[in-house]
Amino acid sequence: MRTSADYKASLKAMRPNVYKFGELIEDVTSHPSTRRMIEGHGQLYDLSLDPKWQDVFTTTSILDEKRVSRYLNVVRSVDDMVANCRMKRAAFNLTGTCTGARCVGFTSMNAMWAATYDMDKENGTEYHKRLRAWLAQAQKDDITVAGALTDAKGDRSRSASQQEDPDMSVHIVERRTDGIIVRGAKVMICGTAAANEVFVLPGAGYKENEKDYAVSFVIPRDTKGMTIVETRKPNDTRCAEGGFDDPVAIGGITQAYIFFEDVFVPNDRIFMSGEWKHTVPVVMNFTSAYRAAIGSCVAGQGDVMVGASVLMARANGLDEKVFRDKLTKMVVNNETTFAMGLAAAMLGKAHPSGAWISDALLANINKVHVGSLPYDTKILAQEIGGGICETGCMPSYVDFNDERYGHLIRKYLKANATPEDRAKAARLVEWLTIGGGVPGCMHGGGSPDGARLLIWSKSEIEKKVEMAKRLADVKVDIRPKPKDGEKGKEKGKEKGK
Amino acid sequence: MRTSADYKASLKAMRPNVYKFGELIEDVTSHPSTRRMIEGHGQLYDLSLDPKWQDVFTTTSILDEKRVSRYLNVVRSVDDMVANCRMKRAAFNLTGTCTGARCVGFTSMNAMWAATYDMDKENGTEYHKRLRAWLAQAQKDDITVAGALTDAKGDRSRSASQQEDPDMSVHIVERRTDGIIVRGAKVMICGTAAANEVFVLPGAGYKENEKDYAVSFVIPRDTKGMTIVETRKPNDTRCAEGGFDDPVAIGGITQAYIFFEDVFVPNDRIFMSGEWKHTVPVVMNFTSAYRAAIGSCVAGQGDVMVGASVLMARANGLDEKVFRDKLTKMVVNNETTFAMGLAAAMLGKAHPSGAWISDALLANINKVHVGSLPYDTKILAQEIGGGICETGCMPSYVDFNDERYGHLIRKYLKANATPEDRAKAARLVEWLTIGGGVPGCMHGGGSPDGARLLIWSKSEIEKKVEMAKRLADVKVDIRPKPKDGEKGKEKGKEKGK
Amino acid sequence: MRTSADYKASLKAMRPNVYKFGELIEDVTSHPSTRRMIEGHGQLYDLSLDPKWQDVFTTTSILDEKRVSRYLNVVRSVDDMVANCRMKRAAFNLTGTCTGARCVGFTSMNAMWAATYDMDKENGTEYHKRLRAWLAQAQKDDITVAGALTDAKGDRSRSASQQEDPDMSVHIVERRTDGIIVRGAKVMICGTAAANEVFVLPGAGYKENEKDYAVSFVIPRDTKGMTIVETRKPNDTRCAEGGFDDPVAIGGITQAYIFFEDVFVPNDRIFMSGEWKHTVPVVMNFTSAYRAAIGSCVAGQGDVMVGASVLMARANGLDEKVFRDKLTKMVVNNETTFAMGLAAAMLGKAHPSGAWISDALLANINKVHVGSLPYDTKILAQEIGGGICETGCMPSYVDFNDERYGHLIRKYLKANATPEDRAKAARLVEWLTIGGGVPGCMHGGGSPDGARLLIWSKSEIEKKVEMAKRLADVKVDIRPKPKDGEKGKEKGKEKGK
Amino acid sequence: MRTSADYKASLKAMRPNVYKFGELIEDVTSHPSTRRMIEGHGQLYDLSLDPKWQDVFTTTSILDEKRVSRYLNVVRSVDDMVANCRMKRAAFNLTGTCTGARCVGFTSMNAMWAATYDMDKENGTEYHKRLRAWLAQAQKDDITVAGALTDAKGDRSRSASQQEDPDMSVHIVERRTDGIIVRGAKVMICGTAAANEVFVLPGAGYKENEKDYAVSFVIPRDTKGMTIVETRKPNDTRCAEGGFDDPVAIGGITQAYIFFEDVFVPNDRIFMSGEWKHTVPVVMNFTSAYRAAIGSCVAGQGDVMVGASVLMARANGLDEKVFRDKLTKMVVNNETTFAMGLAAAMLGKAHPSGAWISDALLANINKVHVGSLPYDTKILAQEIGGGICETGCMPSYVDFNDERYGHLIRKYLKANATPEDRAKAARLVEWLTIGGGVPGCMHGGGSPDGARLLIWSKSEIEKKVEMAKRLADVKVDIRPKPKDGEKGKEKGKEKGK
Repeated sequence: MRTSADYKASLKAMRPNVYKFGELIEDVTSHPSTRRMIEGHGQLYDLSLDPKWQDVFTTTSILDEKRVSRYLNVVRSVDDMVANCRMKRAAFNLTGTCTGARCVGFTSMNAMWAATYDMDKENGTEYHKRLRAWLAQAQKDDITVAGALTDAKGDRSRSASQQEDPDMSVHIVERRTDGIIVRGAKVMICGTAAANEVFVLPGAGYKENEKDYAVSFVIPRDTKGMTIVETRKPNDTRCAEGGFDDPVAIGGITQAYIFFEDVFVPNDRIFMSGEWKHTVPVVMNFTSAYRAAIGSCVAGQGDVMVGASVLMARANGLDEKVFRDKLTKMVVNNETTFAMGLAAAMLGKAHPSGAWISDALLANINKVHVGSLPYDTKILAQEIGGGICETGCMPSYVDFNDERYGHLIRKYLKANATPEDRAKAARLVEWLTIGGGVPGCMHGGGSPDGARLLIWSKSEIEKKVEMAKRLADVKVDIRPKPKDGEKGKEKGKEKGK
Repeated sequence: MRTSADYKASLKAMRPNVYKFGELIEDVTSHPSTRRMIEGHGQLYDLSLDPKWQDVFTTTSILDEKRVSRYLNVVRSVDDMVANCRMKRAAFNLTGTCTGARCVGFTSMNAMWAATYDMDKENGTEYHKRLRAWLAQAQKDDITVAGALTDAKGDRSRSASQQEDPDMSVHIVERRTDGIIVRGAKVMICGTAAANEVFVLPGAGYKENEKDYAVSFVIPRDTKGMTIVETRKPNDTRCAEGGFDDPVAIGGITQAYIFFEDVFVPNDRIFMSGEWKHTVPVVMNFTSAYRAAIGSCVAGQGDVMVGASVLMARANGLDEKVFRDKLTKMVVNNETTFAMGLAAAMLGKAHPSGAWISDALLANINKVHVGSLPYDTKILAQEIGGGICETGCMPSYVDFNDERYGHLIRKYLKANATPEDRAKAARLVEWLTIGGGVPGCMHGGGSPDGARLLIWSKSEIEKKVEMAKRLADVKVDIRPKPKDGEKGKEKGKEKGK
Repeated sequence: MRTSADYKASLKAMRPNVYKFGELIEDVTSHPSTRRMIEGHGQLYDLSLDPKWQDVFTTTSILDEKRVSRYLNVVRSVDDMVANCRMKRAAFNLTGTCTGARCVGFTSMNAMWAATYDMDKENGTEYHKRLRAWLAQAQKDDITVAGALTDAKGDRSRSASQQEDPDMSVHIVERRTDGIIVRGAKVMICGTAAANEVFVLPGAGYKENEKDYAVSFVIPRDTKGMTIVETRKPNDTRCAEGGFDDPVAIGGITQAYIFFEDVFVPNDRIFMSGEWKHTVPVVMNFTSAYRAAIGSCVAGQGDVMVGASVLMARANGLDEKVFRDKLTKMVVNNETTFAMGLAAAMLGKAHPSGAWISDALLANINKVHVGSLPYDTKILAQEIGGGICETGCMPSYVDFNDERYGHLIRKYLKANATPEDRAKAARLVEWLTIGGGVPGCMHGGGSPDGARLLIWSKSEIEKKVEMAKRLADVKVDIRPKPKDGEKGKEKGKEKGK
Repeated sequence: MRTSADYKASLKAMRPNVYKFGELIEDVTSHPSTRRMIEGHGQLYDLSLDPKWQDVFTTTSILDEKRVSRYLNVVRSVDDMVANCRMKRAAFNLTGTCTGARCVGFTSMNAMWAATYDMDKENGTEYHKRLRAWLAQAQKDDITVAGALTDAKGDRSRSASQQEDPDMSVHIVERRTDGIIVRGAKVMICGTAAANEVFVLPGAGYKENEKDYAVSFVIPRDTKGMTIVETRKPNDTRCAEGGFDDPVAIGGITQAYIFFEDVFVPNDRIFMSGEWKHTVPVVMNFTSAYRAAIGSCVAGQGDVMVGASVLMARANGLDEKVFRDKLTKMVVNNETTFAMGLAAAMLGKAHPSGAWISDALLANINKVHVGSLPYDTKILAQEIGGGICETGCMPSYVDFNDERYGHLIRKYLKANATPEDRAKAARLVEWLTIGGGVPGCMHGGGSPDGARLLIWSKSEIEKKVEMAKRLADVKVDIRPKPKDGEKGKEKGKEKGK
């Protein structure tokens, strides 16, 4: 297995195709815009080799029982899924933010593990075999694989095929004997610059007339025709400034737009190519796992917010017990999103392919919590930390060290800690709550409203109505009358239900 | 295993010692004040014999692998604990409310299973052996066992030994060769009248000077010297009225005060007698299991609230989709308290005695949720149901059938259901939200504030501060200064920490 | 002005037409089912004569500047509306619950004060003159006037004219030269038995084909053809038991169904008779005032909940400072609903008739708060009070005094107060949160969802979109495309907007 | 009255003493770091001259009835205070954020208006006369006056006099016949660079031994010895980039640290100099007004968030009705903080000096709401807007226009709006919720926890306990027993209370 040095070397060896602020980033491992993210991902490599952390970050391969990164393996059981949740929480604890170049690719591969098995069984294709072969190589090379689902989509009230521009979702524009040509864009893709390869999934469930959108594949991040443009993050120019205004050097998050300009994908890297019926299961497989585990991410960042709040309170001269109720609420929030993911894992089911599919209802309920509880945690961190945390209301690091007036800033920032340490603690709270460390988990992996729709569809309302009827001794079926039809007919229909 | 008929016969055979409204209840199985609760508990017996429900309500004995009620067995694994959660949810689904004569006794026995093992190992006592013997007989007789923890307590700012009246918590007043004499009261004990026996636990952690309060035993509910007085429930006179104003005939909840006036407990039924050091573990064993699983109770009632709300909406003529957001929120609430219990089970640990101890942190976090989410569910049920649900704002059943004006009530209660069915649905929502079905889970098994204290104690604040320090590159320990001491000394001390 | 004795005498003199539990209540002032409510309303009379309270409960008449009850006068200014809010809060402070026989009639009269003025101006009718005449007499007699809006309604998905039974809303069945004949039912009418007269409003906005439903009048509560049946309240049989289980003797709330079986209303008491165009303004006038002021009601009860919680904490032996955060939150809830009503008054407008119409937007926002904040206050009261408050989990008053075992109950209920006082405090919390004192303000005066619809309609979305466009320098109008139409045409239309 | 051009000219004429990023800002009106804020403040001048807005932004002087800016006048009545609330809301509507260089100075002057009156009356000083003279000139020159309260404070567990460094709060270091010398720092002062003068208040209530901290004065922002360093804002380097990534050109907020290095203040500009007894009233006067009105600020920004959310939804192709519940909740939040301020004004009191003092209880309750409701509004804006709003997840403006790949970004950002307009809308939501427009109102004017303490102190707990006792018929006083004293004595003491 690789060290962080090997990992960085592998990134350096790739064709530069990542841009930000109009600049082509020649070396993603040293450029300020991407370096912190790669430091964060590098930690994951070194910890995989550290006996103390090995159980968290590695496991034995589904292919040959060799020790491999958890991110390059199939989740086979409740225990694997729980280990995944612990790994995500630890990754946030250690980097303060998201290391998204690994978990989305990992979850995408898992979603396709089950789907390729089903497609092959149904249609006699060879997708699953291809995926196994690719996985064997990926494990051998110990690569980092980003995952890409979200399409540009265009007008949200219309499906992919109804858009004026057919490219608004990634689709096949040509089928050749040796592969396919794809066009489109995947947007807001986490950690792209830190990845060796990119695993592409269909971004939605598609219908028969949209089968060219039913496409999944994995290719090197620097494949010909791929252009990557980094998005902005809050305070994303501080990384080039130096000093503690960008307070965390060992973690960072980036998200990118990936443009596919007629990119060729060879056959052995294609895992879906037109099987539209399987797009809904792929999305379900993905979201059930992803929305279960994302609660661990925000719990992991929440842990850091608890710590940073206490650190800040102490730096201000206050005992954290003053804030016991608030800190307890933060802990409740953290453990709730963590635990909901564990429960979703527990109520999951084994798929014949060997993959473990977490429970969709609980996973989506966790997504709803992820869309609200971490915000509450942030508000509490800002309440505890005080005004200089709320909007990072302090002079800059440059000013802090200015020869003319820096001494004044330092004099007046001092409290129950040195001015440096107090400023660092305050910048950390700022970074976590309104700065570069904010991970974007509300919409990452789908919106809370999307999750609510799925919860509703799994609510088993009729079963619960029957419970109520039995208890209240109501014998007949009660249904609302259809709005505009004829009375006689409606009643007949209702009875027929 | 018993049928509900056997169960009822066993209750009839007991000495009458239950009072309510100044009346000695001669037959708890037919008296209006206790009948519904016993109907609810009776269901549990019949369902244990029903192949469809057997897996939910029964398991194999820890003693001899025979099939026994889950309520009379030791929780040995995550799966057992999850099964317990499912059983509690099912019990609420089937009775609409609490069947508390079983789960508290069950959890008490489990708490003592581990504690007696530890005491025997430490002190060479024979408590565990006694408990095994008692359990073997209890399984054979398939009895219902209530559990009793909560003492009268007196002035809450003082401990048991500081009270003016030493009887404010149950204690040993005499030790004899063949047993002990106990005095005191256990209050708000769920389902007492439906129980064959009562399992008593120490109500708090005690210190050395309070060792007479460190007492645990199980005795028949009609033991000499025991007097039971039922407490009032909302609308608790409706049970004697007939008709649908007390809408649920197959479930009910009662809570009682049990007075112990110098009751003799023979040695073979004593499981703790002075071992004060073990009282904290007993309370922890109990609360970890109980507070984990109580989330399933309120989820089970929440299911019925979802069903009753939809039933009411339809009876009013409305499609439940109008209330989709509210119903989805109710489902989120239900599944959250259910799932948190599963996760607490999952993170639990095996005790050398064979008992599974659920995770205390997650269990107590669930208690906090149980103290708020079900209330939110109730409010939503009342919002959906309308004014006649909010306070049960309809004429009585007697008026509904009055010869002079009953026809008017019926005429005007009709909507998209018969007046009878609409009234029944409304009374069910009332019963669940502001009537006799409200179970009292906020304080049952301890208060949310007690849970918050435990969460705080398990918050691992320092570990999280270290995470924050590492990320923000803060190297020194920052501590608040002690308030009134000398400056020099304080600093010295702080450094020593 | 009347004393409470005069008031009671006036009620005794009326024809008995109020039923409960199948019994005709011969004397509402002494019957247990209605007595407490009349005690509560009686207080209002005596306080009006008390110099200390006079400013709260009385004012000068709009007709002749004589001192009259606020409940029998027109709200003419912000100050009048604020005084109304203070009066409602005081009434809850003094009775612990709703004195609804006065404020709904009062608000109904006010709604019609403006509407009759407009109708007369538009149509040359004499409604306003009639209303003035009636008011002069009502002030002279200092009567109590209940208000009645809510119709039975039937199937909620259909309007009054679409119901199978046309009587589901009160309507005119015959027009005579000397008056009209009305039929239908007004349901859940607060305080009916305590009223001398009943003021009827149209229950909804009606269309032209529903003009028979556009009817408003006031008649004595015992008018021929009117039959009143009381609804059930939580624990509504305790009133006949004696003792402190029904803890409040000086306040109570009742709600009734009023049946109109072809009741004759003479011309001088009719204020609307077919003017369907004015039904929406009437409903708006009513709800704007009512939903503004109902926040004062729940604040007034919330005050009592704060007091009862502290009393209970102290009786348990605890200093209320332990619960400072919770009590502060209760105060925030109380003052918020109170203050929102004041602000709605402040942003109101003078109507040419002399009436002051509160701001609809703020009034309806207050209704949303009234549907949630008082519940939060209740939960906090139950949290502070402990298990015996949550469901009133104590033996009954009869048991408390039982000769055989009452001494045991008293011994064990004692804490930092006598058992009697502790039980009374606990019963008060129960009464306020899950007992007979719960007023039903969530749906009283309309549902929170109805309020939300009105808020939406007054949101001025386009104005706010223009603010955003100006700030972000977006020049063109952006509109969602119509869903199923042709593309070309849609665009054309959009531009035309 | 001044135009914005006059205003800018006055700023240009001042001595440069504002620094950011180590640079002395020579011209605050054109420097990217301060320009937007001054544009925002400039609008206020032009609108004051616009007949359409005149009533909002101007009023008649308390001194001579001439028309003056509201920000330079005394709040004399409820109507003035309401007008202040409307002005603040309008200012946020028009600039999208805070124009804090005016309202804090304004509120400071108002707080001193009453306090100087009282001091003069009590001590025969001439502070009030001085303040009137200064105000006359300020009105004549139509200047912008920032306000400065918050001191550096140092260790929060110690008061000003207990700090190791006595300069941690601004204090008098020398008293001269012609004036005083002050030293210290005021931190996080809103809009300093946009101000002509700075009005300084004591930052806390002080005791007798801290009388040198009891100091209030107003001086030009460029007074000798004053050094100003701007703090960082989220994304505060974008202002220098050009393009729409910093989406709002007509508004901005800055906060600064102001260092007073032995600054001389002449007598005619001193309004408090040692009168420690009056520091608490000053703080109360200030916070009652400020915390009441800050609800209007966040309502004003909330209006923009409603508009921006709808704009974004439409740009995404969605009808805003999809989000009706969320938008309605946002409106409820906005109007609640606005209305609470109006109510605080209404319940205020006239001070003999002619100033109107808003109600402290309601003002502080509003501060609690301001610490939570706007966050809820932000979360909803991010939910509606989607992932590109949550963290501004789009490529930069530079990339958007890149010759090599900008066309790809534009192609894929297009939805139901041009890519430019969609990007602008998304950047606006980002700016409002996690960017440069976030105003910092949680701690501005004091923390929510500080407000909670004040609410608690004004809760009138005993009055409410008496209500509860009266209702429940509890006759005796119940008090918790003191914890460690002797029983007999305690009881005696309690009775004496």
